Amino acid sequence: MFLYFYFTVEGVDFVKLLEEKILKDGHVGQGNVLKVDSFLNHQIDVGFIAEIGKEFYNLYKDEKITKILTIEASGIGIACLTAQYFNVPVVFAKKTPTINIYADIYTSKVSSFTHKKEYDIYVSKQFLNENDRVLIIDDFLAKGSALEALIKLIDAAGAKTVGAGIVIEKAYQNGGKIIRDMGIRVESLARISEMTEENGVVFCD
Amino acid sequence: MFLYFYFTVEGVDFVKLLEEKILKDGHVGQGNVLKVDSFLNHQIDVGFIAEIGKEFYNLYKDEKITKILTIEASGIGIACLTAQYFNVPVVFAKKTPTINIYADIYTSKVSSFTHKKEYDIYVSKQFLNENDRVLIIDDFLAKGSALEALIKLIDAAGAKTVGAGIVIEKAYQNGGKIIRDMGIRVESLARISEMTEENGVVFCD
Repeated sequence: MFLYFYFTVEGVDFVKLLEEKILKDGHVGQGNVLKVDSFLNHQIDVGFIAEIGKEFYNLYKDEKITKILTIEASGIGIACLTAQYFNVPVVFAKKTPTINIYADIYTSKVSSFTHKKEYDIYVSKQFLNENDRVLIIDDFLAKGSALEALIKLIDAAGAKTVGAGIVIEKAYQNGGKIIRDMGIRVESLARISEMTEENGVVFCD
Repeated sequence: MFLYFYFTVEGVDFVKLLEEKILKDGHVGQGNVLKVDSFLNHQIDVGFIAEIGKEFYNLYKDEKITKILTIEASGIGIACLTAQYFNVPVVFAKKTPTINIYADIYTSKVSSFTHKKEYDIYVSKQFLNENDRVLIIDDFLAKGSALEALIKLIDAAGAKTVGAGIVIEKAYQNGGKIIRDMGIRVESLARISEMTEENGVVFCD
C-alpha cells in the first residue's frame, strides 16, 4: 500500500488544500454547475481522494462505523478509499429509472436537480441490518435529495445513520440545513457560499 | 493506511482464494447470472478487493502504466483500489442512453447482453492522450463488448492499451478470445469454464 503525502497536518490544513484544488482544477460551467471532474468524479486523483478518506476517518473514527453507504456512480471511489481506514465494507445504492417493489430490497426516491429528473435507488436487504452503524459518503451535497434518500434506506433497515461525509457542500442551498435539522451529523470538507460563472467559487469562512 | 492480510503468497494462491470466495459467497441466479454482489458489485469487501488490486499490480507493474480506465459503476471501486498500487489516476467512462457528439469527448457503443440493450459510453478528451499507457480494469468479461468499447476510446485518444485486468472471466463465452486475438493482453484472475443454476460454478484448470 502506498502512502500519499500532501504536506498537510490534520483537519483545517487539508480543507485549505481541497479548497485550493477546487479553485485550481475546478471551474464553474454553464448553469452554475461546478466541474471537478479532473480529480473527483470522472478522473479520480486516487492519492488525493485517499487523503479525503483519511479526513473522514479522523472525523468519525470513534463512532464504531460498521458500514459505508454511498450511491453510484461518483460516490463509489471516495467511499472505497475511505472504507480502507475504517476497515468496513462499502455498500453502494443502485439507481434505476423505475423499480418493482421486490421483497428483498429497500428503495427510496431521489429528485435530481442537476439532471431534472426523479429516479429510484435501492439496496439489497442483505447488506443493511439493524446492527449497522452507517456512515454515508458522497461527493456533493446541494438540495440534499440523494442524502435524504440514503437515510431512508438506512431507516428502513432499522440501522443507525451515524453521519455523512461530504466532499463539497453547496452551502447556499438548503440540503445541509434540512439534514442537520433532522439531527444528523453532516461533515462537509469544502463549503461553498457562492458560485457563479462570472466570479467563480467563494468558500464559507 | 491499513493492511489486509489474507494469508496468501502471490499469484496462484490468491486466485484459489478468489475462487473459494466466489463458490462460498456467490451464487448462480436466474438466467445463469453470477451474483457476487456480497463482495464485488453491490457490497464491496474493500480489503479483499485491495488484494485483487495488488494482484493486478504484480501482473502489470513493469508496464509503466500512466492511467487506469474503467466503466461505471461496478468497475470504479476495483479500479480505485488497484490504482493506489500504481500511483496513477483512475478515469471512468460514463454511460449514457444517447449522446450528442460533442467535440470534447470520445464515445463508443456497448451492447449489454445481461440488460439486453445498447448504450453509449464516453470519456472527456482531457483525460486520455497519446502519451498514456492504459490498464483497463473491470469486474466481468463475458462477450467482451464493454472491454472492446473501452479499447476504442483509448484508440481514439491515440493512447496505448497495455492490457486488461479482469476479476472474473466467463471463459465459456468468446469475449476473452476476441480481445486476445486483437493482440491485447488480458489477465483474468478467476476463469469460469461452466456455470449453471443446477451445478453452480466450475473454474478452468
